[in-house]
Amino acid sequence: MPPIPAFPDIRQAHERIAPHIHRTPVMTSSDLNELTGVSLFFKCENFQKVGAFKYRGATNAVLSLTDDEAKQGVATHSSGNHAAALALAARKRGIPCYVVMPETAPAPKIEAVKHYGAEITFCESTLKSREDTLSSIIEKTGAVVIHPYDNFRVICGQGTAAKELLEDISGMDCLFVPVGGGGLLSGSSISAKAMNPTIKVYGCEPLNADDACRSLKTGVLQPPLKPNTIADGLLTAMSELTFTIIKKNVDDIFTVSEDSIIKAMLLIWQRMKIIIEPSSAVAFAAVMENRDLIKGKRAGIILSGGNVDLLNLPFRSW
Amino acid sequence: MPPIPAFPDIRQAHERIAPHIHRTPVMTSSDLNELTGVSLFFKCENFQKVGAFKYRGATNAVLSLTDDEAKQGVATHSSGNHAAALALAARKRGIPCYVVMPETAPAPKIEAVKHYGAEITFCESTLKSREDTLSSIIEKTGAVVIHPYDNFRVICGQGTAAKELLEDISGMDCLFVPVGGGGLLSGSSISAKAMNPTIKVYGCEPLNADDACRSLKTGVLQPPLKPNTIADGLLTAMSELTFTIIKKNVDDIFTVSEDSIIKAMLLIWQRMKIIIEPSSAVAFAAVMENRDLIKGKRAGIILSGGNVDLLNLPFRSW
Repeated sequence: MPPIPAFPDIRQAHERIAPHIHRTPVMTSSDLNELTGVSLFFKCENFQKVGAFKYRGATNAVLSLTDDEAKQGVATHSSGNHAAALALAARKRGIPCYVVMPETAPAPKIEAVKHYGAEITFCESTLKSREDTLSSIIEKTGAVVIHPYDNFRVICGQGTAAKELLEDISGMDCLFVPVGGGGLLSGSSISAKAMNPTIKVYGCEPLNADDACRSLKTGVLQPPLKPNTIADGLLTAMSELTFTIIKKNVDDIFTVSEDSIIKAMLLIWQRMKIIIEPSSAVAFAAVMENRDLIKGKRAGIILSGGNVDLLNLPFRSW
Repeated sequence: MPPIPAFPDIRQAHERIAPHIHRTPVMTSSDLNELTGVSLFFKCENFQKVGAFKYRGATNAVLSLTDDEAKQGVATHSSGNHAAALALAARKRGIPCYVVMPETAPAPKIEAVKHYGAEITFCESTLKSREDTLSSIIEKTGAVVIHPYDNFRVICGQGTAAKELLEDISGMDCLFVPVGGGGLLSGSSISAKAMNPTIKVYGCEPLNADDACRSLKTGVLQPPLKPNTIADGLLTAMSELTFTIIKKNVDDIFTVSEDSIIKAMLLIWQRMKIIIEPSSAVAFAAVMENRDLIKGKRAGIILSGGNVDLLNLPFRSW
């Protein structure tokens, strides 16, 4: 297992990436405060470059490479926001980026990664085919693999969003963060507990992909059980590294239904006039379902991203 | 015709309403700058209270009433954002608000006006029925009619958005503003020309509701010709008052097709992760279609509002 990041590592990462990322705004909504009875502070990573917090971790990873390491480029087999983030971070440093994607990946995701200038290699949609294809690219190019979350530098980068939020807003009682592979939640929890030891940190997860919740309950990393959720950023499972950090720092993990996720997403779109992706709505859905627990408190919510297919939205009337 | 507002009136309005409105952010997008070749500054009135700039004018009108005038309440027969804005402004002052709406008004609009606490009276959907119904309410209640744009105080309030934009961003070369009844455009043009006499001010209008364009070209107020556009905030026609101001201050009016409006709206949603209504997209569509005219310039765009029916969106792939 790689070493475990501490808050000074996140501070260092922040200094490194600050000139290259957006310090995203923290938004509030008197409408949603009234609805929930909670003072809500939304950290808007949907306004981050490439539309997701992933740009923080990818930028930190790319900028941390020595010139010698960097010149062969970077590679990943993620097909979501991490791939787009890595592609842009690499382009900004002027190095190649190789992305392995299944042939079945949705067209908008392929377009985004192409848009940011990565070289895409298509493979079959099995994990074995992805890993084999990635290995052969590494062998050929010497590129450095940047894992989307099982990576010290990536976790440090992701932890800078919560750091900014707690710098900007004082007296926060609790923090709601979506959890898939656990990069954002582990990084956020390190920042939050270091800056405010009494803050409660909650992971938020779709019930249909509840491996993090089961892992925290049993204390043992649980495998995902055919996750199937609209929150497509949260399909991945934690690594030993992210789980170790989460087990230590995170107070609880809330699970929410698919219906709750869509309703929460619709509420934020309607009331706040901002576009968030379903994975971000998971955190607000957890607030909605647990609002009696935190009545009158000050709650931070990390809106992780805003990349959705606008031609294929899940909204309906209830 | 009521007196014509001048910039000091707008300054006064701004002092009056500033504690009650949001000073909305000005957003930028390197993506859209690259796409257009223009430095764009978006004034985000979609984040204003009730989701539209209309709250500025309504608040100024309501707060300008004497206690004696105010106690009988205010009334309007608009059914769009102005009605919601007037309802909230009245509620905040603790006075009644009467809104006349056609029975055929869309459910979300009725809901919004109810949500902000106005008393709704339904009528037939003809102009005569609306005016007759409004007259009988005035007679009964003594409420003051607040017209959505043919009103000195309303125009002064609407002019504060451009004032803020030009206070926040220096060296603006031109300003793009949607035009329906002309309240926003006339107010914006007074602020812009007073603060920067060399700035170009452009009205932006759906081709399918081009009465402002025809009026400016002929110099005579033209009647609307069965306007039919997705930009439902721009169906109204200018009054003598707004036309007089616009004729004096506005450099040109650009018209855009329905297709352009939907494409522009989709682009802003996708790239900026914010929700704007079709009437706001009209201004960005005009920039897109005229970008060669303003290449390399600094252009302000007033995003007038963000109230859309999310269950019934016009997006499609091109």
